[in-house]
Amino acid sequence: MKAYQELSREELLDLKDELSRAFDIVKEKGLKLDMSRGKPSVAQLEMGMGLLDALDSKSCMKTAAGLDTRNYGLLDGIPEAKKLMAEIMQVNPENVIVCGNASLPIMYDTISRSMTHGVMGSTPWCKLEKVKFLCPAPGYDRHFAITQHFGIEMITIPMSPQGPDMDLVEKYVKEDASIKGIWCVPKYSNPQGYTYSDETVKRFAALKPAAEDFRIFWDNAYAVHDLYEDRSDSLLDILSECEKAGNPDMVYEFASTSKISFAGAGIAAIASSKANLDFIKKSMTIQTIGYDKINQLLHVNYFKDIQGVKAQMIKHAQILRPKFEAVLRVLEEELGGLGIGEWTKPNGGYFISFDAMEGCAKEIVARCKEAGVVLTGAGATFPYGKDPKDSNIRIAPSFPTPEEMAQATDLFVLCVKLVSVNKLLEQKEA
Amino acid sequence: MKAYQELSREELLDLKDELSRAFDIVKEKGLKLDMSRGKPSVAQLEMGMGLLDALDSKSCMKTAAGLDTRNYGLLDGIPEAKKLMAEIMQVNPENVIVCGNASLPIMYDTISRSMTHGVMGSTPWCKLEKVKFLCPAPGYDRHFAITQHFGIEMITIPMSPQGPDMDLVEKYVKEDASIKGIWCVPKYSNPQGYTYSDETVKRFAALKPAAEDFRIFWDNAYAVHDLYEDRSDSLLDILSECEKAGNPDMVYEFASTSKISFAGAGIAAIASSKANLDFIKKSMTIQTIGYDKINQLLHVNYFKDIQGVKAQMIKHAQILRPKFEAVLRVLEEELGGLGIGEWTKPNGGYFISFDAMEGCAKEIVARCKEAGVVLTGAGATFPYGKDPKDSNIRIAPSFPTPEEMAQATDLFVLCVKLVSVNKLLEQKEA
Repeated sequence: MKAYQELSREELLDLKDELSRAFDIVKEKGLKLDMSRGKPSVAQLEMGMGLLDALDSKSCMKTAAGLDTRNYGLLDGIPEAKKLMAEIMQVNPENVIVCGNASLPIMYDTISRSMTHGVMGSTPWCKLEKVKFLCPAPGYDRHFAITQHFGIEMITIPMSPQGPDMDLVEKYVKEDASIKGIWCVPKYSNPQGYTYSDETVKRFAALKPAAEDFRIFWDNAYAVHDLYEDRSDSLLDILSECEKAGNPDMVYEFASTSKISFAGAGIAAIASSKANLDFIKKSMTIQTIGYDKINQLLHVNYFKDIQGVKAQMIKHAQILRPKFEAVLRVLEEELGGLGIGEWTKPNGGYFISFDAMEGCAKEIVARCKEAGVVLTGAGATFPYGKDPKDSNIRIAPSFPTPEEMAQATDLFVLCVKLVSVNKLLEQKEA
Repeated sequence: MKAYQELSREELLDLKDELSRAFDIVKEKGLKLDMSRGKPSVAQLEMGMGLLDALDSKSCMKTAAGLDTRNYGLLDGIPEAKKLMAEIMQVNPENVIVCGNASLPIMYDTISRSMTHGVMGSTPWCKLEKVKFLCPAPGYDRHFAITQHFGIEMITIPMSPQGPDMDLVEKYVKEDASIKGIWCVPKYSNPQGYTYSDETVKRFAALKPAAEDFRIFWDNAYAVHDLYEDRSDSLLDILSECEKAGNPDMVYEFASTSKISFAGAGIAAIASSKANLDFIKKSMTIQTIGYDKINQLLHVNYFKDIQGVKAQMIKHAQILRPKFEAVLRVLEEELGGLGIGEWTKPNGGYFISFDAMEGCAKEIVARCKEAGVVLTGAGATFPYGKDPKDSNIRIAPSFPTPEEMAQATDLFVLCVKLVSVNKLLEQKEA
């Protein structure tokens, strides 16, 4: 395969004709596929239906300690659920509060509470002139949406396969007391599928922030979401690393079973130091009498422990893996060596990150949409929805069937080629 | 029975001896009863266990419109749940967002969002010098806790059997633009069991607030919680009254199934105008991908419609009624005509409100606790936990068994008598 950059103007024009015809043919098919979000597929949801048998009208509704899950109370969750979520995050149960149906609201509430009530006695952020967050990017659009919603200024931090650029992170948090936090998806990052190296985690734990109310928002969304049984990434426990480094209160960790049990009907948790949890509970006890403990009991009855979770994740992987492999195979076969795109090959998580030639991402996404395949909006993986290079595209292979996934990827590579050819022709004409 | 006020010093001293001996005997029994909160009893929870059979691994998990409740999405709830909650509140489904497991977090979020983002374009309340709320009292302690938590100044409004003192409410909201809201439990109010009269509701709807971001927080917690089939209160629909009065955006209504299905594992909703809901959704779409739709489907499958809810409420009433009647009988038999206490006789809800002689409530609650019966803390029914007359006590008959309830009430009236005698002796000596 010859790289597109080496093609002459004439070769590019011929290619353009050929690709345009191919595009018109696909467009005729009237595809209607959605690769925009990390949604579990119907097959995954069907696989998990046993959960609904884990409680019925004959069940014991009490915890081992005798607490009735059907009644009010128990702000921080039933002990059995705390243990389960602690095992998923590899932390101690006493560092865990089990909350509602998803982790996103916990993160939102954490920011919202910091705005109105500060962090462990600090000035409420809404009273400050300026509050800033570091945002490793490409990253998770819903994180950036929260900080943007609260008027928090976002600073982009470049990502590498080892994690965020720690030189920059260290410099920023040390020098600027208005920097109050950083968003992290440390394992199988959204969208690249990178896992932070041990060195990165240790450097995070050893940060010396100018702001005493600086916190690491550690969204461990894919803690057990391996795609392969024989090669999985491992992540150091940030809580114990922070404690060792003398920064016990510097991190909030988040996790949920949204992509373990059911999306939007799972259980979610926050893990942090006792001092942080005590402060959080001061607001939480005003906000709620308690989260849904029946759903917590349902999850505990079904999964029992981390072994049950891991067994479930192997079944999820069996459904997800062929889709990831289908995408990666088509990308490799169709784009390998062409010099018009690079992509990640993750061992877990829900996404593949694709980097097109600069200035091509929006057009590729638009072309795909024109032919019936919805991708995550270009730019969504950056703060304010603005990718400075207009290059990154998040591919979410989970929802379509493997057949649909192959069709969608065929269209995707076609659009990448077509848009890249146009870009190269523009450049030659300029 | 002779009123205590008419007794001589000697008669009071004799009575004091007698009551003290009786108190010591009860104290010996070592009771351990909780009448502090409006918690459903085990019998009520057992009665509702059928709910857990309303979904299993063979169930259809889609809504009528074909949406999969197991996956992400549908911010405002499944249509079937919107309809059910709308029927409970007697509003239109299009005015409803179905949220999580309880209404308290919706109220908290509503205040929190107003602090950080204002109300439909108004200045965020955290940017204002002063924000005030009107608090009809005696009222619900958790309402007052929310406003206190956010530093909102609370102004007590007296209650009558027809509702809050509307002359005062009208005057305050008209004259003071820093008054941004009022807490209401309009039906079977907490703690009196009063239901706002039609005139009160119409006067609420016709308020002319100085603040454009003034809102009525209408916590319709006991909308279908009648104790008697032959005499139940009815409440006008505030949403349509507000619309008729030209104030369509002035009210947020809240409700949940916490005391219909399971406490803390129900479904909850907010009802309001389209303009309010649109504004709320701007924050909600950042805060969550969606609430627990499986629990929504579970509730819809089990209750079907308002008739199913009403049938369930008749069963709840069968369990609750004997407890209310036991309390009222003992109060009447033991305190009737003594002039040392007045109490409400509600047709629904979860509480009886008791007014002791001024300056006696704290001591009565302390004496009950000393002998093993926990009541809601005296003062809890007022803003800042301070009852200016130290008179009001909330009785929550729901949780104990009828036998325990009788025991607890026997102790309660004994403590009322003893503390009142002491108070009268003090007065005679002064």
